Amino acid sequence: MTEVKVSYYGDEGSYSEEASLMFFSNALLIPCRRFKDVFENVERGVSEFGVIPIENSLEGSVGEVYDLLREFNVMIYGELQLRISHCLIALPGVSLGSIRYVYSHPQALAQCSRFLSSLDVELIPYYSTSSAVRMIKEKQLCDSAAVGSLRAAEIYGMNVVVREIEDNPNNFTRFLVLALRDCEVSGRDKTSIIVGLPHIPGSLYRALEEFAIRGINLTKIESRPSKEKVWEYVFFIDFEGHRLDVNCLEALKSLSMKVPYIKVLGSYPRAV
Amino acid sequence: MTEVKVSYYGDEGSYSEEASLMFFSNALLIPCRRFKDVFENVERGVSEFGVIPIENSLEGSVGEVYDLLREFNVMIYGELQLRISHCLIALPGVSLGSIRYVYSHPQALAQCSRFLSSLDVELIPYYSTSSAVRMIKEKQLCDSAAVGSLRAAEIYGMNVVVREIEDNPNNFTRFLVLALRDCEVSGRDKTSIIVGLPHIPGSLYRALEEFAIRGINLTKIESRPSKEKVWEYVFFIDFEGHRLDVNCLEALKSLSMKVPYIKVLGSYPRAV
Repeated sequence: MTEVKVSYYGDEGSYSEEASLMFFSNALLIPCRRFKDVFENVERGVSEFGVIPIENSLEGSVGEVYDLLREFNVMIYGELQLRISHCLIALPGVSLGSIRYVYSHPQALAQCSRFLSSLDVELIPYYSTSSAVRMIKEKQLCDSAAVGSLRAAEIYGMNVVVREIEDNPNNFTRFLVLALRDCEVSGRDKTSIIVGLPHIPGSLYRALEEFAIRGINLTKIESRPSKEKVWEYVFFIDFEGHRLDVNCLEALKSLSMKVPYIKVLGSYPRAV
Repeated sequence: MTEVKVSYYGDEGSYSEEASLMFFSNALLIPCRRFKDVFENVERGVSEFGVIPIENSLEGSVGEVYDLLREFNVMIYGELQLRISHCLIALPGVSLGSIRYVYSHPQALAQCSRFLSSLDVELIPYYSTSSAVRMIKEKQLCDSAAVGSLRAAEIYGMNVVVREIEDNPNNFTRFLVLALRDCEVSGRDKTSIIVGLPHIPGSLYRALEEFAIRGINLTKIESRPSKEKVWEYVFFIDFEGHRLDVNCLEALKSLSMKVPYIKVLGSYPRAV
């Protein structure tokens, strides 16, 4: 059985690594420090697949990843979601009372703000949850802790001081699996597209009409700056169905005649 | 002439402070470290106004500020925009070649990524652009620089090593002015609302219908996680016109009968 190469965002112990292991049973994992590196590895064929976070159920979308989906010639092959549960992680022997500094990704710190504000600590933003855990281990910081996953604590041989410190248990992150192709019809599919709209009143309404009249359910709409012109936007639309389903095919055909820009990012089985 | 109290996000020398000084000619400025503090100060009457960034023309929306607009009982009194131009700032006497670390807010680092990747430096995220400048001054770091505004360099007596290091000159940040009331009709107004939609196909389409049939132009639509349920959203809609204009009044009235949740954030003169 040959291993498939999968680039993912973050270090060993990151939530993206966990997502990669959930999606691929037999993968050679390539960690990437930047979102962009994952896209580049997929576009250039360095790895067949890429795994990146696209959205958290509390914090919202990862804007940079949306912009990269527009920029790179990659497609969406799949999606999956992971329940995010954060731990307060420190060197073995370090007690809660001796922690003065807490390092983590700003989003993870924000997600644990209720617990963290009950401590008398300074919060320090760091690249990622897992790199914060590793840094504390490497520098042997006895007055510091990191917010990260149980898995990161295990990998780096660190101690979990407190678990499940997130404010809201409705904390899931949705990940996309990138490839040079999208996925075949599965019968429980979702399609993602990017649309640029003409600058006239009602243009978004008339674009959405193509889905509404066919009873196609939108699961998400996200606007991002066009970057070419100030305060103009492109729209990322996710809808139920495969792009080869008859009604979706028709909707996309009609829509493409109404708008100046459309890019189909791909169809893939919905995460369950 | 009595001074008006204005809370703003960030330290002295932040872009929000600059925006506050542009909007109010005679203000007693209160710096706030967190977005939430600005909202609290306005809601509790600690200050009459608050100034916070809502959106950058390249990086997109500030998600946390959108969530706070939903959470707090404040209204939007005004908006303004500022051209963002970043400088590489270091202690006097420090040359470009001796810089090993660059500190700034992650968004500012991202906005200068082309220039910064041409240097052999490590990028370190920090709370804000201005606090990064101040920290380098206070700790007298000779191997570090910050990305920040010309104004921040001046305030802290620091040296501008390189100016205009941003990748894209289309770099503007839009700021909101918060108060306990919104603004009177000016004739060139904008209105912001938040809408929760019923969970049926076509609900966004039918909500936008109320604007489209009246020829009301939407200037922005932004989705944010509802937080109550995973992968459900509320929509922030900005449209042209004042909420007391007849057609806007009618659109809002019809819309409120279609949706389970609506909050009018206010009407205010459009930024020019």
